[in-house]
Formats: sequence, structure tokens, C-alpha cells
Amino acid sequence: YTAKLVGITKIIKLGGAQAVAAMAYGTQSIPSVNKVFGPGNQYVTTAKQILAKDTIAIDMPAGPSEVMVVVDGSADVSFAAADLLSQAEHGTDSQVILVSTSISTAKDILKEVNKQLERLPRKEIAKEALINSAAIVVEDYTSCLEIINTYGPEHLIINVKEQEMIQEGIRSAGSVFLGPYSPEAVGDYASGTNHTLPTNGWSHSYSGVSLDSFVKKITFQEITAGGIASIGPTVEKMAQAEKLEAHKHAVSIRLKSLG
Amino acid sequence: YTAKLVGITKIIKLGGAQAVAAMAYGTQSIPSVNKVFGPGNQYVTTAKQILAKDTIAIDMPAGPSEVMVVVDGSADVSFAAADLLSQAEHGTDSQVILVSTSISTAKDILKEVNKQLERLPRKEIAKEALINSAAIVVEDYTSCLEIINTYGPEHLIINVKEQEMIQEGIRSAGSVFLGPYSPEAVGDYASGTNHTLPTNGWSHSYSGVSLDSFVKKITFQEITAGGIASIGPTVEKMAQAEKLEAHKHAVSIRLKSLG
Repeated sequence: YTAKLVGITKIIKLGGAQAVAAMAYGTQSIPSVNKVFGPGNQYVTTAKQILAKDTIAIDMPAGPSEVMVVVDGSADVSFAAADLLSQAEHGTDSQVILVSTSISTAKDILKEVNKQLERLPRKEIAKEALINSAAIVVEDYTSCLEIINTYGPEHLIINVKEQEMIQEGIRSAGSVFLGPYSPEAVGDYASGTNHTLPTNGWSHSYSGVSLDSFVKKITFQEITAGGIASIGPTVEKMAQAEKLEAHKHAVSIRLKSLG
Repeated sequence: YTAKLVGITKIIKLGGAQAVAAMAYGTQSIPSVNKVFGPGNQYVTTAKQILAKDTIAIDMPAGPSEVMVVVDGSADVSFAAADLLSQAEHGTDSQVILVSTSISTAKDILKEVNKQLERLPRKEIAKEALINSAAIVVEDYTSCLEIINTYGPEHLIINVKEQEMIQEGIRSAGSVFLGPYSPEAVGDYASGTNHTLPTNGWSHSYSGVSLDSFVKKITFQEITAGGIASIGPTVEKMAQAEKLEAHKHAVSIRLKSLG
């Protein structure tokens, strides 16, 4: 439905590093493209980065998925545990970080994580992911923010009493989920925010994929005779200062024609 | 003035590949940054591309500067020649392309290029650049557009009678200059459009640097109890289809709490 709506006429199912190469250079059956977006394993990421030096624009470097869950004493312990596990089950290289202003809440959440873990079909994967993971207890909201903005999490769940105090200070994150009823899973599947997000600290430099990522901007300018008469002398002076005589001349010849 | 206006407190004068490395990783005197923009020689471009795999976001790959001048029989021959030369004097690796729907106008422009060239202090540089350059004579506006959109010029000057016919069809270009009084030099120095533009065909994938390049976007979402009650079952179904039980559970546990 969406493809039809926006005028997409060709959909090709393929994956892996070889797919990125095929799209970058084109093959007999696959037309070459200008931009290649979307997450992939380390081979796909490397292919994207190599080809970005040659012929395509990419969205961002991609790494394993991660979530940071920020709580205080007011948070529902079982919700927080479920959110941590829903990221941990992704892959053994996933990372989940709990940040809590309350040590007892943090301890309760970890206990609940172990309890919920036992019931998961992907228990072994989640267990290994938890080895790369951490729970951090901090003094206050200010310290929460420092950790958020240093780590720059791909997914960030804020589940504290005064969420505005944290919300306002977020500078580096991919996608933020606010309040008790906003698990990351809803963003993954149904709420509509984009799911291709910067990982591994790349949120310091990159935004997630959005409509903007598909847009190109070209600047157009048209200067009138009156305009060149007004702005021309400035250009002449600056070109002369840089000793670029032909730049200056391109303006002078027009000013002369205007008499 | 501008730095003060927008709150820039630190300006560091440095250049070359080593400057890119210093900004990417930070040194004792240079803080590390998240994005590195701006043109440079092939060493700077290579440094940017290597470091983009590790720690920074870059604007685009940069190459030698180029201009395409599109004319028909109505164009002022001396203006077109001056515009070609103002790009040619940049460097020996610059490229200038003339596209004309009239063979006699093209010939007149080339004659005028040779005449104007003699007066330039940077004559030797411009002469060498002209060796990499070309004049192309085409049948009609449609062919002009095909050449424009295939080449994707960094700078594009359109100097034809019915400019709208070409203007509307431009898909790949960095910055476009319309009409007889819009030489590229004005954009270089004074009219205000950004001057860091995609070269070497990169306009197929990239836009020039703009305010947008400095902006990061973070998505925020907050789902209410009513919201999760409404959207939750969809998420559960999709998570189950992907066999991601913990994703499903992060929603189910919330739905259960709502009774």
C-alpha cells in the first residue's frame, strides 16, 4: 500500500554484503541506486562503508542493538525488567543498560529480570547479552542525563516521576520512549517512529532514518540586473582579495553591460 | 558576528588531514567533535572518509570543483565564457562543461574563452583545467536535461530563453544559477547560498551543506494507558510472528496491569 502511495514501482528482495554491492554498482537484474539505508550485520555495514567512499550515500554505520532504561523509585519493576529483556533477546551482542536513582529499585529490577528470563524461549541469547550489560545506580536526574548523553543510546526508555526534567536535557539518543506505557516494542512494530537508528554512540553524530534521509536539496538562485548592480561590487572586491581575477571578471563584464 | 549570534564560543584555525584527525579524536588543545564538514584536497577527503568509519559524521566526499554552463542561441557569449573561466582558474583539476543547443553559439563561446583567457593572471592553471573540459552541442532542452542529470554538476548555470523548461526537470545538481545575471561567483562570495557542494557526480546522492546538516533529530513518543490498550494487541501479534517472546511480553505485562 505504501509503495503504491509514494510511487515505488520496484521492490527487490535481497540481503547481505553482496546485495549492497549489487545496489551500488547495478547488475543485469538490479538497477544501481544512489542511497543505501538500513541495518545489517558487520559484513553489511563494512560493505556500506566501503561503497560509501565510491558511489553511494549511506544512512549511518550500524552496530548491535541497545536500550537504556532510566528509572527512579516510582518505576514499575516488572515493566522495566520486561523492557530490558525485550532488547536482550535480540542477539548475543545486544546491550541493555539500566540507570536507576534508587539502589533498591535497581536490585528489584535485576531480580525480576532473572525471574522473567527463565520463561523466555530465547533465554540463552538473552543471558549472553546480559553479560555485556550493566546496571548503574546514580545520585540524581543530573547524573542520569550525563550518562544518557555520554552513552547516546539507540533506544532510551524514561520511566521516572518527573520525566520532563530528563526529557528536556537529552542531546544524544536515537529514539526516546516516555512513561510507563511506552515500551520499545511498540516503536519496533506499530507506533510509526523509524526503527533504523544510530547505535554504538553514533547518536552523537547521526539522526535516525526519516523522510529527510530520502530528500535531496538543490539551491536555486536568480539574480536580477538590479541585484547584480547592488551585490556585484562586493563580489568584485572579495574576488580581488583572493586574487581570482576570472571570478571578478564574471561580475565585471555583467556590470559593464548594464552601463 | 555570526559565531556570536548562534553561540559559537570556540574557533580553531587548522587544516589538512592532521586537522581532521585532531578534531575526530581530540588532542590536548583541540576538543573532539561529532561532525566534520567542508571541502579539502584529496588527503583531507581521505582522512574524512577513514574517520567516518570510526567516530565522525562527514558532509560528503569532496572532489575538484566543477561548473556546467547551459546555453542556447539567446545567451550572451561573453558572459558564458567568463563563467567557464571563473571555474577553470580554480585549479588544474577543475572541470568546466559547456552544453549548448546551438553549434554557432558554442563555437563563439569557445573563441571568446580563448580571448578572455589571455588576460588572466592564472592563465596557466585555467589552460590546464580546460584540457579536462568539454563543450557539448545537443538537439534540444530535453537533451540538456539528460546531460545535467547524468553528470550532476556541482555548479549549474542555466542561461537559455525558456529557463523554466530546464529548471523544472533538474534532479541532480549542487547549486543552480538562473538567468544572465547569476554568475557562480556571486554564489561563491555574497548571495548567501552554501558553497560546500557535492562534486564529481555526488549530487546524485548528496545535498550541499545547509542548516539541516548541523541538526540532529531525536524521536520522542509517549503512549498512554488507552494507547497501549489500543495498539498493544497489534504489537503482540507481530512480535509473536517473529518469535520474539520478550518483545511481546513487554506489552502483555502492561496490558495485564490495566486489567
